[in-house]
Amino acid sequence: MRDPGKERDYPLAGGVLTTDFAEIVDDPGIAVVAEVMGGVEPAGTYVLELLRRGKNVVTANKQLVARRGVELFATASGAGVQLRFEASVCAAIPVIKVLRESLVVTNVHRVLGIVNGTTNFVLTEMEGGKSYDEALADAQQRGYAEADPTDDVSGADAAAKMAILATVAFNSHVELADVEYSGITKIDALDVTAARQLDMVIRLVGAARLVDGQVDVTVQPAFVDKQHPLAKVDGAFNAVMLQGDAIREITLEGPGAGGVETASAVIADITSVIGTMGTGFLQNDAAWRQLPKLPDGDSTSPFYFRLHVADRPGALARVAEELAEREISIARLLQHQNGNGAALHVVTHEAKVGALRAALAAVGELDDVHGCSTPRPVISDRGVAELGWA
Amino acid sequence: MRDPGKERDYPLAGGVLTTDFAEIVDDPGIAVVAEVMGGVEPAGTYVLELLRRGKNVVTANKQLVARRGVELFATASGAGVQLRFEASVCAAIPVIKVLRESLVVTNVHRVLGIVNGTTNFVLTEMEGGKSYDEALADAQQRGYAEADPTDDVSGADAAAKMAILATVAFNSHVELADVEYSGITKIDALDVTAARQLDMVIRLVGAARLVDGQVDVTVQPAFVDKQHPLAKVDGAFNAVMLQGDAIREITLEGPGAGGVETASAVIADITSVIGTMGTGFLQNDAAWRQLPKLPDGDSTSPFYFRLHVADRPGALARVAEELAEREISIARLLQHQNGNGAALHVVTHEAKVGALRAALAAVGELDDVHGCSTPRPVISDRGVAELGWA
Repeated sequence: MRDPGKERDYPLAGGVLTTDFAEIVDDPGIAVVAEVMGGVEPAGTYVLELLRRGKNVVTANKQLVARRGVELFATASGAGVQLRFEASVCAAIPVIKVLRESLVVTNVHRVLGIVNGTTNFVLTEMEGGKSYDEALADAQQRGYAEADPTDDVSGADAAAKMAILATVAFNSHVELADVEYSGITKIDALDVTAARQLDMVIRLVGAARLVDGQVDVTVQPAFVDKQHPLAKVDGAFNAVMLQGDAIREITLEGPGAGGVETASAVIADITSVIGTMGTGFLQNDAAWRQLPKLPDGDSTSPFYFRLHVADRPGALARVAEELAEREISIARLLQHQNGNGAALHVVTHEAKVGALRAALAAVGELDDVHGCSTPRPVISDRGVAELGWA
Repeated sequence: MRDPGKERDYPLAGGVLTTDFAEIVDDPGIAVVAEVMGGVEPAGTYVLELLRRGKNVVTANKQLVARRGVELFATASGAGVQLRFEASVCAAIPVIKVLRESLVVTNVHRVLGIVNGTTNFVLTEMEGGKSYDEALADAQQRGYAEADPTDDVSGADAAAKMAILATVAFNSHVELADVEYSGITKIDALDVTAARQLDMVIRLVGAARLVDGQVDVTVQPAFVDKQHPLAKVDGAFNAVMLQGDAIREITLEGPGAGGVETASAVIADITSVIGTMGTGFLQNDAAWRQLPKLPDGDSTSPFYFRLHVADRPGALARVAEELAEREISIARLLQHQNGNGAALHVVTHEAKVGALRAALAAVGELDDVHGCSTPRPVISDRGVAELGWA
């Protein structure tokens, strides 16, 4: 409560507003508290105290849940109260409730998400021909991006959301620090053009996977096939795709931010708390187990990268040899003249990122190779090969 | 229980299986019953009796809920038990739970859905050049369509789902009989070609709207702009788009049928019943009010239709005059030679269907006009004009 004296559109009855935390936590008549302060502290101390004192808490605080989820969930569970946090991920898109209450027996093993509207808007505009700087300025002008857009364009905001989604999807502690992330600041016109030539678009994709009982969560710019549902998410919209044994693939799409949207998610959580108070067994510790993290390098994906090679006989053969030696197999290849050399666009089959890094390091040592782009994951597969009815 | 003696993949403990309804309804130890028999009777009698006797019921029975929802909801409400029916609409896509529990304060005023996978598959295949008969045969071969596909291709299946969705979205009794529906059997190559020329695709779209406190629910083939999210739903997938004040637009997409998917929705409902037993206030009568139906003819939409006109000076002027007289205003016009006449493709601005019918009747009387296609609604607008942040 920044200013209890502020004039409000909907005036409240006297005595309801307070700046004193004790008045809330000590009031036995309050059963549910919504935390919409933001920031890790003092919000974290307040929420923990509320939970310990037997109050249910609804929070919209992404950073808090992503950084201190373990402690929060355990405290709520220990005190026999609920912690709900729908608004902390993608505002009014009800992905937390769907994961926790609708997909209870579906074994979700993969979550793919476009969970940051700012970067999706910028990338969509760049497809239309704008430079990164122009697109970002446009996003700022429309209010999609902050004056300091670091949190969005660095991928940090998306990483916090993916940590929460992975926690809920796999019921395992995933903290922000467990998410490998990179942003869109290094995406340039060359990348956008290359994607178009391959019938793909570039999207900042959060990916959480359960691989042989190990958790792998990343956020990075990906080359997404134009036929894939995530390629069709335009502008500032968000989408989360859930893949599991019993559901094949369910996608939720909508505006992932906004004040009214966030408020509507908070109020839905409050009503859900009240509707399940006393039973509430679906709201047990969201992260009751601790699965190991997939070792760095073991994450697999098809990848795209681009090499600048000398236009000499044998150059391609030597590159292909280095790749083959690390079992990197080529799915698509596109070569064109580029000044006095050639640009080689490569899409691999599924490969371990560690093996790919080693292969590209070796390729970089070749006399014929003058440069190599950062490899990007390629997303083209669906949760289902063929949509046959079960 | 068709055959309790049948050998099963997962054998059950002795005495659990029964063909005797009394053994279930008289057992005080049973708190929740899942009805997956299908058919309106005897399922309806059983479900009503279970509810009256204080048992919560979970049902996957679309026809039952769409035809006898009023009675079912009132009985559950009166007995203080829950009736959940997630699996009755789009299998594992959790649209009922999202509407009832997540979008509690969003004032949903429009639901657009592709809720029949069979027809969506057929229409998608027709875009690829197949005839209706070829596409339907293909759907049957893949198991998407029944040997007798009437229920799907007539729009009846989609109409039942839209009745349920409208009931839940607007909390008002909408029965199958309240839904105006038509199917895809009259869609031909001319329509598909026309849609393509207008940068649109044809989809069987269910639309439920709340217009000045009146409910309007239809299922019909629509011309959908290629940029619209519903145009991007390919093959046998389903999608439901919910538009409301506080959420702008949330879309849920996934496989809308399948045995395992349906089972997963039923089990999620069972766990939700158990998780809310004793409180359950979110599961009050889904249709606690009875809003009036929008009068026939008052439903509005932009429309597409096509005229075959004589290639004579003044033909277009006379057509335009008849339209203008009923305040039908033209948004797009495409004319091309067609044998010894011309084909005139017309897209109107938002118009009342009653006025459009009257105008087309008058146009049909003109000497210059040799034929007119069935008008089809056009869907190109989103829930939001511009995605600004609130």
